[in-house]
Amino acid sequence: MFTGLSAFPLTPVTGRGIDEKAFTGLVERLAAAQVDSITVLGSTGSYAYLDRAERARTARLAVEHAGGTPVIVGIGALRTRDVLELAEDAQDAGASGVLLAPMTYQQLTSDEVFGLYADVTAELSVPLVVYDNPGTTHFTFTDDLYARIAELPNVASVKIPGVPRATSEAEGRLARLRSLLPATMTIGVSGDPLAATGLNAGCDAWYSVVGGTLPGPALTITRAALAGESASAVAESERLQPLWELFTRHGSLRVVSAIAELLDLVGHPNLPRPLNGLADEDRAAVAETIERLGLR
Amino acid sequence: MFTGLSAFPLTPVTGRGIDEKAFTGLVERLAAAQVDSITVLGSTGSYAYLDRAERARTARLAVEHAGGTPVIVGIGALRTRDVLELAEDAQDAGASGVLLAPMTYQQLTSDEVFGLYADVTAELSVPLVVYDNPGTTHFTFTDDLYARIAELPNVASVKIPGVPRATSEAEGRLARLRSLLPATMTIGVSGDPLAATGLNAGCDAWYSVVGGTLPGPALTITRAALAGESASAVAESERLQPLWELFTRHGSLRVVSAIAELLDLVGHPNLPRPLNGLADEDRAAVAETIERLGLR
Repeated sequence: MFTGLSAFPLTPVTGRGIDEKAFTGLVERLAAAQVDSITVLGSTGSYAYLDRAERARTARLAVEHAGGTPVIVGIGALRTRDVLELAEDAQDAGASGVLLAPMTYQQLTSDEVFGLYADVTAELSVPLVVYDNPGTTHFTFTDDLYARIAELPNVASVKIPGVPRATSEAEGRLARLRSLLPATMTIGVSGDPLAATGLNAGCDAWYSVVGGTLPGPALTITRAALAGESASAVAESERLQPLWELFTRHGSLRVVSAIAELLDLVGHPNLPRPLNGLADEDRAAVAETIERLGLR
Repeated sequence: MFTGLSAFPLTPVTGRGIDEKAFTGLVERLAAAQVDSITVLGSTGSYAYLDRAERARTARLAVEHAGGTPVIVGIGALRTRDVLELAEDAQDAGASGVLLAPMTYQQLTSDEVFGLYADVTAELSVPLVVYDNPGTTHFTFTDDLYARIAELPNVASVKIPGVPRATSEAEGRLARLRSLLPATMTIGVSGDPLAATGLNAGCDAWYSVVGGTLPGPALTITRAALAGESASAVAESERLQPLWELFTRHGSLRVVSAIAELLDLVGHPNLPRPLNGLADEDRAAVAETIERLGLR
């Protein structure tokens, strides 16, 4: 389950709460595209902004509309007590796995983050993906900490924040990670612009922002890379370069939010305040890019 | 109200929830010491880790036990909707003011942070302190943003993250801030090790971590500085240098948590998991320091 393309859909939010119709539409679109798994309530799914009831409801809707595609549910929160409750809710909703990032307000030590994973994995009955996302959590994992957490029960995969740009360095990074982690544990790349590089270097999975809104091109890259057709994977990624530039400039969340609007998959606004969508001129640039690249 | 010493108490948390007896004891201790205001549910009060009901209860207890000392209540949350609810709860509890930091998960733009303050101040009936704490929020205010927010209704004070170490630079920074902000707005320093410098340079208030647990020395510094006895303020701050070094090494929250334990003001553990208290050897160093400095 923790291999191939895991697609991270938005959780569209309006002034009245979660737009359930739009959300289930996104989930059904991903299932129809035959992504390998759907990770709801990731960073792209705005988990950090939603309350417990909203998150339980979102998890349940995702499982109901995924048509059998495995659903992984983000359970991150600042407080361990809340993470444990969210894990219970995710399991009750029928999640096939959970995803946990060490959110921070006060800076955490490695021992504190290890303690969080120890407390949570001890209570789980589904596998867990370690979510290393320093851009949002402001916590940096060390390789030692990866290795310690990997020995805990139910730890099945790690979502790494990216790989070096140069192929040989990316391969070296993967070799280093393989030497640290149990053979049963999968390694998934994130950071969409370097996903092809990561998959070609040996990552088992791509935990993908763009795949949650545009599963087609993300599947093209993933299928090619995992079939050993590395040049095809790179070519498709290079074709998407204008999109990656927008991600870098505005953050991937705001860009996929705009894309989903432009494709009539979600309404406007769809991000939880205080987050705003893109300004009009930036939305126009997104519109021009998806038109030019034929993305839909 | 937004002048002098504002003391930030811990909100002690056990496995069973908030330790209300210990919390009200801390509040009564601050009132008895005659601090100028008590800010509950600041970063030191672990606001980011508590749920809405816990925060409403904490605010209510603080007002009940403050004996007329003004109580300011932290209302920060990741989502604007939640901030608005927390503001309502704080006002219902009898808060004299509220404190708002722009918490982040996704990085926020200046326009988004301005929008947050605009949305919240429009609904307030008590004054607000702008809480600039980049170490925990990972958001950096610009001077332009300060000036824009200062024009909103109900904005009464700003808690700045610190001042330059050199006196003349600190005075220059204060002069610059005064030129940007309305004359009615007060400026409060935070970052305890440089509080004396900040007060001597012209800050109206000290939003103080140490003052929430050890009001005595914090009042000595504040009273001296505000009476123009700048050398006395500096001398007391320099006497506390071993304490400031512990703050720098471990973070102020973990150190005041250990001090409060050592003084029998709170039990152990008292921080919300995944936060741990200090390791035994570090606690021993804290114990030795408070003994040596005669802090109680």
